[in-house]
Amino acid sequence: MIASLLNAIRTPDSHAGRRLWIVVATLILLTLVAAVLDTLPDLPDWAVGALRAFEVFVVVCFTAEYFLRIIAAERKTSYIFSFFGLVDLLAILPFYLGLAFDLRGLRGLRLLRLFTVLKLSRYREAVDRLSRAIRSIRAELTVFGFLALLVLYLCGICIYYLEHPVQPDQFRSALDGFWFALTTLTTVGYGDLYPVTALGRLFVGVIMVVGLGIVAVPTALIASALTRRPSGPQE
Amino acid sequence: MIASLLNAIRTPDSHAGRRLWIVVATLILLTLVAAVLDTLPDLPDWAVGALRAFEVFVVVCFTAEYFLRIIAAERKTSYIFSFFGLVDLLAILPFYLGLAFDLRGLRGLRLLRLFTVLKLSRYREAVDRLSRAIRSIRAELTVFGFLALLVLYLCGICIYYLEHPVQPDQFRSALDGFWFALTTLTTVGYGDLYPVTALGRLFVGVIMVVGLGIVAVPTALIASALTRRPSGPQE
Amino acid sequence: MIASLLNAIRTPDSHAGRRLWIVVATLILLTLVAAVLDTLPDLPDWAVGALRAFEVFVVVCFTAEYFLRIIAAERKTSYIFSFFGLVDLLAILPFYLGLAFDLRGLRGLRLLRLFTVLKLSRYREAVDRLSRAIRSIRAELTVFGFLALLVLYLCGICIYYLEHPVQPDQFRSALDGFWFALTTLTTVGYGDLYPVTALGRLFVGVIMVVGLGIVAVPTALIASALTRRPSGPQE
Amino acid sequence: MIASLLNAIRTPDSHAGRRLWIVVATLILLTLVAAVLDTLPDLPDWAVGALRAFEVFVVVCFTAEYFLRIIAAERKTSYIFSFFGLVDLLAILPFYLGLAFDLRGLRGLRLLRLFTVLKLSRYREAVDRLSRAIRSIRAELTVFGFLALLVLYLCGICIYYLEHPVQPDQFRSALDGFWFALTTLTTVGYGDLYPVTALGRLFVGVIMVVGLGIVAVPTALIASALTRRPSGPQE
Repeated sequence: MIASLLNAIRTPDSHAGRRLWIVVATLILLTLVAAVLDTLPDLPDWAVGALRAFEVFVVVCFTAEYFLRIIAAERKTSYIFSFFGLVDLLAILPFYLGLAFDLRGLRGLRLLRLFTVLKLSRYREAVDRLSRAIRSIRAELTVFGFLALLVLYLCGICIYYLEHPVQPDQFRSALDGFWFALTTLTTVGYGDLYPVTALGRLFVGVIMVVGLGIVAVPTALIASALTRRPSGPQE
Repeated sequence: MIASLLNAIRTPDSHAGRRLWIVVATLILLTLVAAVLDTLPDLPDWAVGALRAFEVFVVVCFTAEYFLRIIAAERKTSYIFSFFGLVDLLAILPFYLGLAFDLRGLRGLRLLRLFTVLKLSRYREAVDRLSRAIRSIRAELTVFGFLALLVLYLCGICIYYLEHPVQPDQFRSALDGFWFALTTLTTVGYGDLYPVTALGRLFVGVIMVVGLGIVAVPTALIASALTRRPSGPQE
Repeated sequence: MIASLLNAIRTPDSHAGRRLWIVVATLILLTLVAAVLDTLPDLPDWAVGALRAFEVFVVVCFTAEYFLRIIAAERKTSYIFSFFGLVDLLAILPFYLGLAFDLRGLRGLRLLRLFTVLKLSRYREAVDRLSRAIRSIRAELTVFGFLALLVLYLCGICIYYLEHPVQPDQFRSALDGFWFALTTLTTVGYGDLYPVTALGRLFVGVIMVVGLGIVAVPTALIASALTRRPSGPQE
Repeated sequence: MIASLLNAIRTPDSHAGRRLWIVVATLILLTLVAAVLDTLPDLPDWAVGALRAFEVFVVVCFTAEYFLRIIAAERKTSYIFSFFGLVDLLAILPFYLGLAFDLRGLRGLRLLRLFTVLKLSRYREAVDRLSRAIRSIRAELTVFGFLALLVLYLCGICIYYLEHPVQPDQFRSALDGFWFALTTLTTVGYGDLYPVTALGRLFVGVIMVVGLGIVAVPTALIASALTRRPSGPQE
């Protein structure tokens, strides 16, 4: 049975390899669901116990898989220190170090394994097209990000100086100003902070219009990049 | 009269067929208005009575239409089990099962009938263009949706662990985290939940910028798909 | 002096015509500022008096202009019943009917006169390009608006039935549901209303993703229409 | 040493010039961090002292740099009255005028110096492409901005008259209406102000749909301009 598992690991495109991938992916999805259930308040004891048992079961499975992958790998060290090798290790290690509870967030790393689905040829092409389009406007996006950071900084500092005297408990420092600037420039606008002074509102009004640009320009850049270089192989 | 109605049902493009469509559509629109009036609080008794009477009238009309459609259909069973056949049945059945009150939401199904307006040639072409453009970027949208789901999951879990200790009543479980992540990534930002810790705000700041991408990339994808394949028949 | 004014009215492109336009536009802008000042609470008496005097002055000016335009027009009735003729009349009539206070909102009509700036050739071309692009996707926008209305209706009704039992004071009727649906689908999200039930949040989560589409698709449609038909005279 | 500094200033593209740029940029970034730390409440005395000392140090550095730049400049007055010359002066002058505390906001001007990074050839091209695309739709953007201002004005005045009678403390004057209109049209939606009357909500609903256009049209304009004129030198 171990031999056939090793075989499945070595040939991810084979029938056995795909079946293994589906088993692993299902385990990961169950793990993600368990991580959510874990956060529910007032869980009955049996549920906590079941979640613990499931976690032990999953860790055992992934530990077995980890060692099988090391055995299956031709160059052991290159797997161990590869991106997915480290992800696999970090996702099980805390459990053995008795840190399972405090570092259980690391279990979330397992979902990175799901990214291997993007290696399917159909999606790989789509990823390629998207990333090629975005690479072609790297310089524009960098300039734009630089300007956006400057606007964010200026807006955060200014709104602090404009609103702090009137709302000292809301705008306690420039950090609150930055948080406000971010929620405004991205047009999220929670409403936990907002200007109340006439000058503050005037200033934020200008910043909002800039925020429209911060939404509009990258959208436009990506759209034009995708339109100009639509096809994969011709290039 | 039944013969002419059957005729109108059988030939939806004829003058009689169109007139029937207009009558049915008007009834549906009145039904939609009645459904809204139904929710108004403190309705006087006469209004409740009138709404009940109207509902009975409409159900009788649609029941008659349902049977006429079965009679008019050449292949009875294929109509009964067709999408619009099931919609027609579900929209009237609750009334006869004495469930009219509890399942009156199913009346909403009637508005699906309005979609038949999209079969008009002028609009059918527009729908075709739009759906062809969206189909041509199916793989990209799938990859993008997959990434968005992963970001949503990670963001929901992380914000729960970051904010739960400080706001246990706001972020009660990871489900609240997911709700917050959704309102942020879509840039809606109701403000019922928001981070108050420095780390939480820093994290959400990063997520907001990702949220901009989640608004920008599909817009850009659809725009470029529409630009590249603008014309209908040539393809 | 009246003769030269008549001349200026008759030849809007001449030097005198432009100067008249600037005088009228300045008066309108002052009127708009006065309308804002009018709403300020606790105005001192002298300011209220000054605003009243200014309003009388403006009405006299626009009345004079109105009669001059009738005199200047070759075909009197075609001016009186033209769009701008009616606008001019409606903007001064309430004052003479002693309704100045209650209908002072009609003064806002004066700003429609500012639209004549769009007749300048440079901007007329831009307006033409934009409106031609939007006309070319009229069918798509109609279909899209139709779908958006259906989604809005369904969302408003559903959220009412999902949230009314828990928040009867927030979601009093389906009208509140429609208001909530609008703020969500446009991604504005004031936060005056939001779902608190698990089912309501799940439902709104789906609606938010639809809302992204409602922002993305028209943007994409206009972008592609502008890209495909960039030039004016060739068509 | 002064000679080599002068040399570095005169030849910004040389090795020495770049090293000087990095030193200056690092100083500016530290200054920006210090400006944020400055706003933190309840700073211990030693931290306030350290920030003061750092500010003195930075001002001395920038003063030295300012005089070196004057010395290095061939035409002294053209540097002094150039944009960056005035920025350099305004960023240090308040300190010497004993206004350091009240005008410390002017220190923020230093970050304008960071914009010189955009002169790097790679980014200059990207800036050129972006600004050329935006210039090519100047007329459209002007028309659009004009319409947006009119909508903003009308919306602000109308919402004031619709909501003031019911919420006199929220909508105190048309200025509050303008603020509300801005947060709505940009889809930020803090939720500090929102309509509660049926008529107000209906009106704002229409305005929200217009707001979608205000987000969509400039995005679409920029996207189409970038798509149509993607290349730099050919033009």
